[in-house]
Amino acid sequence: MTTDAFFEKVLTVRLTPDRKGVDIIDQTLLPGTVKRIVLSTREEIWEAIRKLRVRGAPAIGVCAAYALAVTSAAFETEDMDDFLAKVHEDAEYYASSRPTAVNLFWALRRMENTARENAQMSVAQLKERLYEEAQAIRDEDVNISLGIGRIGFELLKDLKKEGKSIGILTHCNAGTLATAKYGTATAPVYYALDKGWAGTDMHVYCDETRPLLQGARLTSFELSSAGVTTTLQCDNMASLQMKMGNIDIIFTGCDRVARNGDSANKIGTSAVAILAAYYHIPFYICAPSSTIDMECPTGEQIPIEMRDGSEVTDMWYKEPMAPRGINVFNPAFDVTDHSLITGIITERGLCRAPFDKAFEELGIGR
Amino acid sequence: MTTDAFFEKVLTVRLTPDRKGVDIIDQTLLPGTVKRIVLSTREEIWEAIRKLRVRGAPAIGVCAAYALAVTSAAFETEDMDDFLAKVHEDAEYYASSRPTAVNLFWALRRMENTARENAQMSVAQLKERLYEEAQAIRDEDVNISLGIGRIGFELLKDLKKEGKSIGILTHCNAGTLATAKYGTATAPVYYALDKGWAGTDMHVYCDETRPLLQGARLTSFELSSAGVTTTLQCDNMASLQMKMGNIDIIFTGCDRVARNGDSANKIGTSAVAILAAYYHIPFYICAPSSTIDMECPTGEQIPIEMRDGSEVTDMWYKEPMAPRGINVFNPAFDVTDHSLITGIITERGLCRAPFDKAFEELGIGR
Repeated sequence: MTTDAFFEKVLTVRLTPDRKGVDIIDQTLLPGTVKRIVLSTREEIWEAIRKLRVRGAPAIGVCAAYALAVTSAAFETEDMDDFLAKVHEDAEYYASSRPTAVNLFWALRRMENTARENAQMSVAQLKERLYEEAQAIRDEDVNISLGIGRIGFELLKDLKKEGKSIGILTHCNAGTLATAKYGTATAPVYYALDKGWAGTDMHVYCDETRPLLQGARLTSFELSSAGVTTTLQCDNMASLQMKMGNIDIIFTGCDRVARNGDSANKIGTSAVAILAAYYHIPFYICAPSSTIDMECPTGEQIPIEMRDGSEVTDMWYKEPMAPRGINVFNPAFDVTDHSLITGIITERGLCRAPFDKAFEELGIGR
Repeated sequence: MTTDAFFEKVLTVRLTPDRKGVDIIDQTLLPGTVKRIVLSTREEIWEAIRKLRVRGAPAIGVCAAYALAVTSAAFETEDMDDFLAKVHEDAEYYASSRPTAVNLFWALRRMENTARENAQMSVAQLKERLYEEAQAIRDEDVNISLGIGRIGFELLKDLKKEGKSIGILTHCNAGTLATAKYGTATAPVYYALDKGWAGTDMHVYCDETRPLLQGARLTSFELSSAGVTTTLQCDNMASLQMKMGNIDIIFTGCDRVARNGDSANKIGTSAVAILAAYYHIPFYICAPSSTIDMECPTGEQIPIEMRDGSEVTDMWYKEPMAPRGINVFNPAFDVTDHSLITGIITERGLCRAPFDKAFEELGIGR
């Protein structure tokens, strides 16, 4: 079994064959409806990012890069100054769609820099160059996932026992839907499928991940769609699942890793890591090396975003599920202490404690 | 501040002043609407238990006992055999409302036994005797809560620091809404209010408790209504809350305690206990001595009820939040290992490890 047919259907973002549109899976309709839409105009692109039709830091970056290539190609001018001004205008416009998405700004800046650095080209050549740069951004993300997947797959092979599937727990969605192709936490699973493992060789348990339910809506959808044996559970059920001996290894994504290995990820990840330590289950963070911040000494320096309480009390529900006006604690992230982490898997290699030394040995931050 | 005005409004179940009806708070309307209803007919009583308008093992028992006294008092017969037959018929009928509610059967059997054992009385006298027995069932439950509350309050007093509120975490609802009056896990809090503590002397953090959301719908409602500073959080946020130093002590209820102290309670309780151990926070189980099963050697012998996956994927939601047909793990309970429990608070005394010895010293199981 390979993942080709799966990605044909579920790939988060790709260019249309005529390169005149960005073809995305509309994540706001998942898991009920699997529908692809083509974004052709500036307004459609802006709205899709704004409304989270495309989400996940790497996926947003790739989408914005493709978008800038597509809309730039349609500019009817031969004047380079005019062209660069229009590219800048669109980049600014796209950047306004999600003012907190760092990866969005990063991808747009990289595209703009590419344009400015190649101003000696003709406009037609530069349009082609922008397509290449967007493709490069996409391919780099795919390669990061593949690097993580390759290392994770080695860990899975070590756990493989005849006639028994490997139990894998994940939290939130660090899957294909968040990235250009293989995801981060899911990369070892997709990598294994591409290497010929059957979907039944692995059993992935997905925490639903309150309050935004990314595990229920996205992770359980994408993995089951790929043919992987998948079970959904509430966050508070992970302890019993581990106690029952069903979890052999844990992979989660991360948003930011400090120099000492402390890792910020979706709220609840630290609880999963503490449970894993209690039950002696290996716990791995899957982290593109770009998320490792060598300037940040420890998790203490990572601020925790507090979000609106209505996500806990009202969102998704037919009616409010808590008394009006109740205080709500709704942090978006927590930090998992490095002492709880078995290893941090980057595309450059597997890091084990002491993490600062391991990061330096891989040349991270240089 | 005492809790009188609060219980006037929120008391789960009571007899009407004319003793012709059972006056309950309709829990199916909480937390949006606080409405009391009076159940006067057999059918109204059956429906209220069936539809979970009244819930929680002790509360259901008290409701059924009151109900049997009320409907028996209306029987127009002077013939004792006829009367006993009618009492039996109603008891059977009420028992059919929730076929898995052990406390319901227990309370009805006790009422029926009272009737049979007093068959030498006149029917009029026996009707009065049944009211007394129902009241005794209710008073015993109140006294169990008070006994637990008194011990828990001593623990809270030990934690009290000038100018700082005590942070208390609880999971699920083991509150007034589940019992005759003070709850079990909440009993220390209500006891403290009755002893003159202000609602701001304590800050209770309520896990929302997926999938049925008893913490969000019920616990955060009752505690905030009683004037206690209350914060609601998703189950996966407890780890960060503990790490931030906001939790000083944890109280949860329980369904069944084995002889060695292993305690079955709402799913997720074992995770809370593991986190508490990691963060060095005392974790207490509040258990009426009747829930301690000395015939059950360890938690291994306690079966875990598995419930329908739709509670995780569909219940409460405007639309399904997971792909159709996904496997769902939905256990109702988990067992917290005795080694994670700081103490088990019963109405007879506080038990610490070794629990079997502590239970025996309190005469539990004899």
